[in-house]
Amino acid sequence: MSRLHVLYRVHGTSVDDGHALATRIALEQSTETPPNAVLDRFVAEQVVGRVEDVQPRDDGSIDVRVGLAAITTGGDVAQTLNMLFGNTSLLPQVELVDVEFPETWLSGFTGPHFGVEGIREALGMDERRALTCAVIKPQGLSADRLGALCHTLACAGIDVIKDDHGLADQSYAPFAARVAACQRAVERARMETGHRAAYAPNLIGSPQTLVEHAAIARDAGAAMVLIAPAVVGMPSFAELVDEHLDVPVLAHPAYAGAVRAAPPFLLGKFFRLLGADAIIFPTSLGRFGWSAQTCAGVAVNAAAPWAHIKPALPAPGGGLSVENAQAMVEFYGSDVMPLIGGSILADPALAFERAQAMVQAVRAARPAPVAPAVV
Amino acid sequence: MSRLHVLYRVHGTSVDDGHALATRIALEQSTETPPNAVLDRFVAEQVVGRVEDVQPRDDGSIDVRVGLAAITTGGDVAQTLNMLFGNTSLLPQVELVDVEFPETWLSGFTGPHFGVEGIREALGMDERRALTCAVIKPQGLSADRLGALCHTLACAGIDVIKDDHGLADQSYAPFAARVAACQRAVERARMETGHRAAYAPNLIGSPQTLVEHAAIARDAGAAMVLIAPAVVGMPSFAELVDEHLDVPVLAHPAYAGAVRAAPPFLLGKFFRLLGADAIIFPTSLGRFGWSAQTCAGVAVNAAAPWAHIKPALPAPGGGLSVENAQAMVEFYGSDVMPLIGGSILADPALAFERAQAMVQAVRAARPAPVAPAVV
Repeated sequence: MSRLHVLYRVHGTSVDDGHALATRIALEQSTETPPNAVLDRFVAEQVVGRVEDVQPRDDGSIDVRVGLAAITTGGDVAQTLNMLFGNTSLLPQVELVDVEFPETWLSGFTGPHFGVEGIREALGMDERRALTCAVIKPQGLSADRLGALCHTLACAGIDVIKDDHGLADQSYAPFAARVAACQRAVERARMETGHRAAYAPNLIGSPQTLVEHAAIARDAGAAMVLIAPAVVGMPSFAELVDEHLDVPVLAHPAYAGAVRAAPPFLLGKFFRLLGADAIIFPTSLGRFGWSAQTCAGVAVNAAAPWAHIKPALPAPGGGLSVENAQAMVEFYGSDVMPLIGGSILADPALAFERAQAMVQAVRAARPAPVAPAVV
Repeated sequence: MSRLHVLYRVHGTSVDDGHALATRIALEQSTETPPNAVLDRFVAEQVVGRVEDVQPRDDGSIDVRVGLAAITTGGDVAQTLNMLFGNTSLLPQVELVDVEFPETWLSGFTGPHFGVEGIREALGMDERRALTCAVIKPQGLSADRLGALCHTLACAGIDVIKDDHGLADQSYAPFAARVAACQRAVERARMETGHRAAYAPNLIGSPQTLVEHAAIARDAGAAMVLIAPAVVGMPSFAELVDEHLDVPVLAHPAYAGAVRAAPPFLLGKFFRLLGADAIIFPTSLGRFGWSAQTCAGVAVNAAAPWAHIKPALPAPGGGLSVENAQAMVEFYGSDVMPLIGGSILADPALAFERAQAMVQAVRAARPAPVAPAVV
């Protein structure tokens, strides 16, 4: 019977304790019983988790690989999270590092509905070049002022203009009014300049709110949407993508840093599996201090060939400066969408010039011939 | 304008860096811009976060208190998570420790619909004594065999019999069949013994699945339900409680250990705010190694007087033994529901005797006169 192969990293224990903990995790993440409580042969053979490997690492941590029966997930996103890290998340010394999903199990998931090529098509881009992404903020501005900023960025040639992920449905810029103003702004910019920018409103809220806001965005004609899967809940995210959206989805990492799961897995692989077409992550050149290796890991997992699952577009951001935008293309290749917020908006009077400088830098960059590999 | 007062703990930095990081967090969790990018007076005065306090602690960590404008949450659960810890979760050195919510903001939340007293009423208990909770597992057993176990535990006098949180909608015990078998089991036990046990099925899945399964549980007559808010997603949990459930809700901590938020806040206060009537957490006497102080913190926050929000029932579990059940009542008082899984089921042939021993131990215990205080 097919199994999910789950890699956990255990910190601060001896190798002996690592072996004991591996057995513990295999039980904790399957039957959650003492081993002698399982009398049923089917359960013992087909349901109980199996320790597949225990490997001490040079830094003193221990890698534990456990095989979890695919049947225990019921093919459901919430139950998959539960089986991967439900109770074991309560052990502070254990990190979820990676999962290999069996192909039979993967067949239940669509992954990105658009992917890298679909995003280019949806945006009407006929050349294979790096994209650019900028942000409208700060929250607190009115819908009209956010719309004006959206127009400025679109006129400067930015490809995707996303809401700040802090823009929700607040009184100062209600969702429907904001979407209308910003969508009008990109349409007006297109008439004026010929450049086709996509506006991506932020969908955030309870499941019902998400469905209602998705309908508002669709009716307004928004060409993309932004969603933070860890904030709205990954099961809710996956259902929304599968049943209520027909435009490319840009995933935001808010709250995802808190879940003690390695970013290359969570952002690069799992968000992609759940349907993210583009994936925002904090670049090593930004303000969150993630290593270049972690960032490359996210990008590699977002784009690597993977069964029938389309590649997703890496969107490095999180404090990226206009001056560093070019380096992103030189590092990640053409299939990338650098995301710049504050560095364009630091002086709002210069937003147009800064956005234009970003667009020019990205277009002028010599893309890396292939996406980076994780060392 | 009212503010949420958010306490973050910063690890591994100097006091000077702590001050700098405090300013950073205040911006990161509000406008997410450089300070000079905010030209608008309303935004600068009413929306930008404010550092309220920076306090070095004896262990070298630094407590940072930030005031976030209530208006930025839009009164929405997902957006509240986003404002509390969205981007800052991406900084591995920062932990979310506690939040004081202003009363005006709290008025938008119901909290537990039943609470401690409501659970007793729903279960038809007329005495104020500690409750008992046991578990049916392991997953892999058929619905009928889980039903038989449910019957055994009900006959032994257990008050609340919950699904193992690993029971979802798997092929070997589909949700509808399991709920029917287990609900019949507790009803049969009541006819045979007079003891009224509540069966709490595990609701897990996407938002639509949750609504469908809530209806199945209601139609079958289940007197409680189990939900892991961090697994299904907290916004989805809150909406389900408010709009689709009419029985007490038992919250499970699965996946909640991963979110780098202090358990007294996340489990005791926030799950309660979102509507958990009873809250499961790993006791210090169990297998997860949480400190007695952390556990007491969860229990205190679950039960403390708090505006119009009803108290929730603490359910210490996570490896609690039958032998230690009594100590739970002596520590937490009468308003507690010790939860025992493996220690009852270690030898399935003795499940009845072990469950009965738990019931007797809890009834014989001398409750602490008041709930514990956090030192």
